[in-house]
Amino acid sequence: MSTTNNSYNSDPLVPEVVIQRLPLYVRVLTQFTNAGEDVISSEQLGSMLQMTPAQIRKDLSYFGRFGKQGRGYDIAMLEGQLRAILGLDRTWNAAVIGMGRLGRAVVSYPGFAPEGFNILAAFDSNDDIVGKTISDLKVESISRLTKSVKELEIKIGIVTVPIDQAQGVIDALVEAGIRSILNYAPLSPQVPDGVIVRGIDPVLSLQSMTYYIR
Amino acid sequence: MSTTNNSYNSDPLVPEVVIQRLPLYVRVLTQFTNAGEDVISSEQLGSMLQMTPAQIRKDLSYFGRFGKQGRGYDIAMLEGQLRAILGLDRTWNAAVIGMGRLGRAVVSYPGFAPEGFNILAAFDSNDDIVGKTISDLKVESISRLTKSVKELEIKIGIVTVPIDQAQGVIDALVEAGIRSILNYAPLSPQVPDGVIVRGIDPVLSLQSMTYYIR
Repeated sequence: MSTTNNSYNSDPLVPEVVIQRLPLYVRVLTQFTNAGEDVISSEQLGSMLQMTPAQIRKDLSYFGRFGKQGRGYDIAMLEGQLRAILGLDRTWNAAVIGMGRLGRAVVSYPGFAPEGFNILAAFDSNDDIVGKTISDLKVESISRLTKSVKELEIKIGIVTVPIDQAQGVIDALVEAGIRSILNYAPLSPQVPDGVIVRGIDPVLSLQSMTYYIR
Repeated sequence: MSTTNNSYNSDPLVPEVVIQRLPLYVRVLTQFTNAGEDVISSEQLGSMLQMTPAQIRKDLSYFGRFGKQGRGYDIAMLEGQLRAILGLDRTWNAAVIGMGRLGRAVVSYPGFAPEGFNILAAFDSNDDIVGKTISDLKVESISRLTKSVKELEIKIGIVTVPIDQAQGVIDALVEAGIRSILNYAPLSPQVPDGVIVRGIDPVLSLQSMTYYIR
């Protein structure tokens, strides 16, 4: 059983849901840094995220000792270490596969690049779209996937094809050496061990809004 | 400061991040039900979500007493009560505003209806698109927003317009009486008290994948 539309089976030492919480920690720490704060307690961090201080300390304890008893965490140091742990201290090259409506929206989304995610390639299987330039990207045939992934050092695949093509595209990404896939298609794909897939899930967002209007 | 691209300022008794976790609880409980289980402990639930049993009990304690000491939770009852709390025991009518690439992808997404979210209307400001039928929806002029929202009892607005139009569209939705907005545009919109906005945030998903490939 899996709690989300994700797959990963390596490093059992750190549970996947803990890893999924870390970007939220980074975001809160960045907000505190921008507000001019230097030190934060697990109580304050817990208060921001509505988590118990014990839960915060347990999550962080997977990665070593960050704070001093009774002194709180050095915000800059903790943020820097969490960014390093998450691999956010560098940039990552990504490719979008499926240049229909959704894919075009994704490549024009301005939120990726400031966070270090650079979309360097776009692929489609439709000959009418291949060769066109969309958001400064020349759309390539999906048959060139493996070659371009290697040449451009692409590490992340973003899947925006229709549901009936998604598993095939994900297989091709895995074949090309990609181990990290952001999947917009509403299915839970099969992937081998060592490949992680995250699904974009607007339903979860809707389900936590109806509380307020029920 | 806010931890996410969300806004809400009512009912301070239950923190918003707790509400945001409840759909995950529902999802896990549904999985256990489907696996034929009847009873679940806070330890088991915590194990699935990698949360401490104390955190689970604290989250649930906002809504009353669900379990008996040492007996665990009745899964069907807890799932039913959480669904009722979240307003998931009924259907909700939604409208999509912005019928470009992203909007068209959203209205054709098959994941909403099975969870009770019915997209009944689509709007655009472009005269070339208004009047067309897309995924069985006749695209309406945004000038008809207030009228259609009332007639169709629409409670949720899904914003898929470009970033430079998003705040204006969100203002129009609020004006039309919508209090629950799913926002795909990468900005944190201004909304009055009592209106909740959730942003779809693929960056958070990417940031928790790079851990595995860094």
